[in-house]
Amino acid sequence: MATKSRFLLLRLLSELRAHAGWYRSSASTSSQGRVLWRPHLRHLSCSHTLYKSPSPSTGPSSLSFRSHTCGELRSDHVGHTVTLCGWVQYLRNDLFVILRDFSGLTQILIPQEESAGHLKAVLCDLTAESVIKVTGTVRQRPAGQENKGMPTGDIEVLAENVEVFNVSRKLPFEIKDFVKKSESLRMQYRYLDLRSSHMQRNLRLRSELVMRMREFLCNVHGFVDVETPTLFKRTPGGAKEFVVPSREPGRFYSLPQSPQQFKQLLMVAGVDRYFQIARCYRDEGSKPDRQPEFTQVDLEMSFVDQTGIMSIVEGLLQYSWPAEKGPIKVPFRTMTHEEAMRDYGVDKPDTRFSMKLIDLSEVFLSTEVEFLRSALSHPGGCVQAVCVPGGAKLFTGKDLEEVKQTARTQFGQELSLVLVRADGTLKSPLKKLLSVSSTEALLNRTGAKPGDLLLMAAGSLHTVRPLLGSLRLQCADVLESHGVSLREPSVFHFLWVVDFPLFLPKEDEPEQLESAHHPFTAPLPEDTHLLYTEPHKVRGQHYDLVLNGCEIGGGSIRIHRASEQLHVLKNILREDPSLLSHLLEALDSGAPPHGGIALGLDRLVSIMVGASSIRDVIAFPKSFRGHDIMSCAPDLVSEEELKSYHISVRWPTEQGGGGEEGK
Amino acid sequence: MATKSRFLLLRLLSELRAHAGWYRSSASTSSQGRVLWRPHLRHLSCSHTLYKSPSPSTGPSSLSFRSHTCGELRSDHVGHTVTLCGWVQYLRNDLFVILRDFSGLTQILIPQEESAGHLKAVLCDLTAESVIKVTGTVRQRPAGQENKGMPTGDIEVLAENVEVFNVSRKLPFEIKDFVKKSESLRMQYRYLDLRSSHMQRNLRLRSELVMRMREFLCNVHGFVDVETPTLFKRTPGGAKEFVVPSREPGRFYSLPQSPQQFKQLLMVAGVDRYFQIARCYRDEGSKPDRQPEFTQVDLEMSFVDQTGIMSIVEGLLQYSWPAEKGPIKVPFRTMTHEEAMRDYGVDKPDTRFSMKLIDLSEVFLSTEVEFLRSALSHPGGCVQAVCVPGGAKLFTGKDLEEVKQTARTQFGQELSLVLVRADGTLKSPLKKLLSVSSTEALLNRTGAKPGDLLLMAAGSLHTVRPLLGSLRLQCADVLESHGVSLREPSVFHFLWVVDFPLFLPKEDEPEQLESAHHPFTAPLPEDTHLLYTEPHKVRGQHYDLVLNGCEIGGGSIRIHRASEQLHVLKNILREDPSLLSHLLEALDSGAPPHGGIALGLDRLVSIMVGASSIRDVIAFPKSFRGHDIMSCAPDLVSEEELKSYHISVRWPTEQGGGGEEGK
Repeated sequence: MATKSRFLLLRLLSELRAHAGWYRSSASTSSQGRVLWRPHLRHLSCSHTLYKSPSPSTGPSSLSFRSHTCGELRSDHVGHTVTLCGWVQYLRNDLFVILRDFSGLTQILIPQEESAGHLKAVLCDLTAESVIKVTGTVRQRPAGQENKGMPTGDIEVLAENVEVFNVSRKLPFEIKDFVKKSESLRMQYRYLDLRSSHMQRNLRLRSELVMRMREFLCNVHGFVDVETPTLFKRTPGGAKEFVVPSREPGRFYSLPQSPQQFKQLLMVAGVDRYFQIARCYRDEGSKPDRQPEFTQVDLEMSFVDQTGIMSIVEGLLQYSWPAEKGPIKVPFRTMTHEEAMRDYGVDKPDTRFSMKLIDLSEVFLSTEVEFLRSALSHPGGCVQAVCVPGGAKLFTGKDLEEVKQTARTQFGQELSLVLVRADGTLKSPLKKLLSVSSTEALLNRTGAKPGDLLLMAAGSLHTVRPLLGSLRLQCADVLESHGVSLREPSVFHFLWVVDFPLFLPKEDEPEQLESAHHPFTAPLPEDTHLLYTEPHKVRGQHYDLVLNGCEIGGGSIRIHRASEQLHVLKNILREDPSLLSHLLEALDSGAPPHGGIALGLDRLVSIMVGASSIRDVIAFPKSFRGHDIMSCAPDLVSEEELKSYHISVRWPTEQGGGGEEGK
Repeated sequence: MATKSRFLLLRLLSELRAHAGWYRSSASTSSQGRVLWRPHLRHLSCSHTLYKSPSPSTGPSSLSFRSHTCGELRSDHVGHTVTLCGWVQYLRNDLFVILRDFSGLTQILIPQEESAGHLKAVLCDLTAESVIKVTGTVRQRPAGQENKGMPTGDIEVLAENVEVFNVSRKLPFEIKDFVKKSESLRMQYRYLDLRSSHMQRNLRLRSELVMRMREFLCNVHGFVDVETPTLFKRTPGGAKEFVVPSREPGRFYSLPQSPQQFKQLLMVAGVDRYFQIARCYRDEGSKPDRQPEFTQVDLEMSFVDQTGIMSIVEGLLQYSWPAEKGPIKVPFRTMTHEEAMRDYGVDKPDTRFSMKLIDLSEVFLSTEVEFLRSALSHPGGCVQAVCVPGGAKLFTGKDLEEVKQTARTQFGQELSLVLVRADGTLKSPLKKLLSVSSTEALLNRTGAKPGDLLLMAAGSLHTVRPLLGSLRLQCADVLESHGVSLREPSVFHFLWVVDFPLFLPKEDEPEQLESAHHPFTAPLPEDTHLLYTEPHKVRGQHYDLVLNGCEIGGGSIRIHRASEQLHVLKNILREDPSLLSHLLEALDSGAPPHGGIALGLDRLVSIMVGASSIRDVIAFPKSFRGHDIMSCAPDLVSEEELKSYHISVRWPTEQGGGGEEGK
């Protein structure tokens, strides 16, 4: 890229002199006088083309050089003089220029008379993606030449005047929806990638969605939009927080993962209802495909319970949902965490299709099959299955092998496959081991029919559920790859998952508890007394919002009493409560009952528009590895510049050790 | 503070056991069942108090425990059963509880019958700032007991049921508007400070203003709200940018001072109209009273000229201006940079009062007064004055001395004071030196009348103008301290300053030019040719928006041609253009003419509400020195935690040198 830039600069430099005259003359065509105490119609001074069509006072063309956008002219406009601005999509036969802006395309007719020779020459000389202003008259296209696939396809504009704003170089890729570009090229030339109609649509849909959300929260429900700091104190052990050195030696701000503490403090402050479209930061280091900064729809309410928050969110999504995506129904379905794990093996079930987990433990209670009996003999052991309709018919040998491979490599589990043949007989290594009655019970219990595939696993509930939950999704992908329509992209299944456990055993120290979500979540009222006796049994007033199997939000009712919060921090989580003393003090200063939620805006929009990555709904995302490829961030900074922050780089030694400095 | 936190924790711990029973029992009063596939009126499950008043479906009390806010009950509501939630403002005579929420106060009448003994006991036991829910009946206050100063002063609510959500400790200060608190106490207990009615008003007014701005830009004028990254590449020489270490050794992101590059790239991308309420960062190190993060109303438009941007901003402010602050008139007054410097001695004139700079050079062309003649003999030399009406009458000796002191210490200049006595004679050291005709010409030219004060300075134009511009403001302060009303706080004078020079001589290398604003500003069309011949004479298409003498915004039409941008960077500014190669490439790829502006939201709101500091319109501002006093940010981070970022702290040695590591 360095060579490339150098090349570009050299070329530009050589053009500097050559084009100087041309640039000057064309610049003068948009000159404007100094207008002090300017008259009311100031835009009249923006140009002195002979063919001025005034811009409207509102709408997307207000106060602009143009009178209309490239997407809005129709037969009604025939005979009008209009001014359009935009990019040259392409030229056709020296007869037409197709002009594009964010709103669409318009066909410009190049005059062919000899008297318009200069105009014709300018237009025919244009390179693709050059930027022009054209004034002309709207005409009906000759009969038979209409383009029904183009909203402006009934008309064309006969050019009478043109101003060339900028001539485009030959670009690294064409701005056409059907031109495939590599991800890295799209990122490097993001400003070109964003010209595509689908990226324009995504950004505009996102903007409109957020606007509607604000209207609902602010105007309909009295929320206050409050900005909270992003330069904050580091959370103890906050391994995922970026640090920001200050000019005081050794002291760092940190970029918070969410405004959690601030939103709670705002409730203590009596703000009553807070929301913010909040920028959040998470440093996931080497994890691929994570954005280091992302956006949350963050809200918090006082004097409200879980059902109140859930209703606000349902109303919010229903109100802001784009009309073009069809209406959504509220209230959303609700499921307990236990049900989700039992039926789907995950806490964010994709409820667009069934294929639920089926417990077969009873079927095999007295089995003689060794590995099944062994699994059931342990406490918490089980035998479970997923039935894939049509799986026996559709899955190839490779598909089956891949499913088994996932079980082995990702879960360290053996999987038993049972294929039900068209004639109802089974094909399976298990076949010989199962008694007739077991076989019958198996088919009965799973509802497996000829052509279906059963995935069976035995072991501890904590392993078997996630395993089958994951394979259920993998099998859905396989079915769809064979043409079965399981999950309509235009269908949106919202689901609340509730009644999560409040604490979980720590992975490395299972006798110790840690918060399942965060230490501020309140217990279910009926479980509160267990905080003091059996904290591992306490369920929290936490709720996750799931859309099509993706978690798009999570929230909770918070602990609002200092003594309860202190008990959780000190006695249950065994954390040093002095690190959160400001929050404890706040709760002790008249804190109202409160709760809230945060929705992941990037994820929500990406599901809404059917994008494969959240990068497609962010204007300038970081790459897979957290880089801004266009500007080369993150970048090297000189030792000198770091001095004022009292830090220096520890360059890794060749052995990979740290600590030694060098350059 | 450490001792304090420890004390708090000990107290809380001791209360844990004592209150456990009470907490449990009161928690159970707001228990709720698990509701799956919840019924429509879910909020009914939020409480099972006997006296339930349903919350409305929209407005600030929707989906809440309350039926009304504390500010909304009037005589119309008499007889209604209502539920209020809020903070105990104070108790009066064991008869009344005054309950507060964000919207106001309501008087709760404590029942005195013996049968309500328990209720009375609970209410009379409440500490100030405790949080309760009260259900009761709205009653007309007895005749003569109405409080006309209180919007709800005609009614009171007879308590029938109470739930205590939280008991407040004794707070470090009372939540009363007349209670003066130190700035550091306000910052440390920000969540209490925000309970004051004026902070509640400020935050809400800010939220409503921003909402109106969004409506105007998005809904009326077709802008797209686009979020731009805050983890970006460091600008070369960007001494004011915070750095953020990444996990790649030696590589840093940087927190940008504004989305300047991104907004221009969005125009190249064809987004057409962009806006964002953008968080910006500026590390001004030791400068006091700057916020390291602040908020801009940032916008950019394609196919538009300077008058278009100015009109959009005028429309934006007119549309969003709070009704309670009175209407504002558009278009705003416009003044050239040269006029501003000539008449007011600053580029952000406070036009709410006159006292303009008066040039007296002609008066003294043939003077014999040595220091005046000497000043005029130099090229660019001048004699100028400011006439302070009533100054001779009102200014004390101390006032006059302070004005002279400012001239001396801040500008290294001597000032001549001329007081016009009531009888029209002068009192001044100059008096003896001036001829009768000079004296007459001086009074004529300045229009000084008996009782007025003249401040005269002689020297170079570049020193005299800023000197008198600054003293003009100081004298206005003095006049106001003596009761003269010069600048009504409720009057808003907007002013555009235009036609700034595009380049200025560098302070340390005056033969070299630097950008007056930034290198992307386009020249005035009529000055464009001077870029190639006399760049120091070029005026830019830059505009500053000034409100009551404060700069609240600035913007420009940008250079949209790569060759012109390259010429400015390379030949005029002598910067390495390869550092901005991505922008140059973008301009060369079909960039439309475009321009924009950024308004300082914090400053704008603070002037609007008459706050003395922007800290009063930010929910959680940093202190004077950039600290978050409540949470103690920035804070120490362990060497271990810094390892993953490949940095280590350079602790300063006792001699104040850097570089040596230690702990």
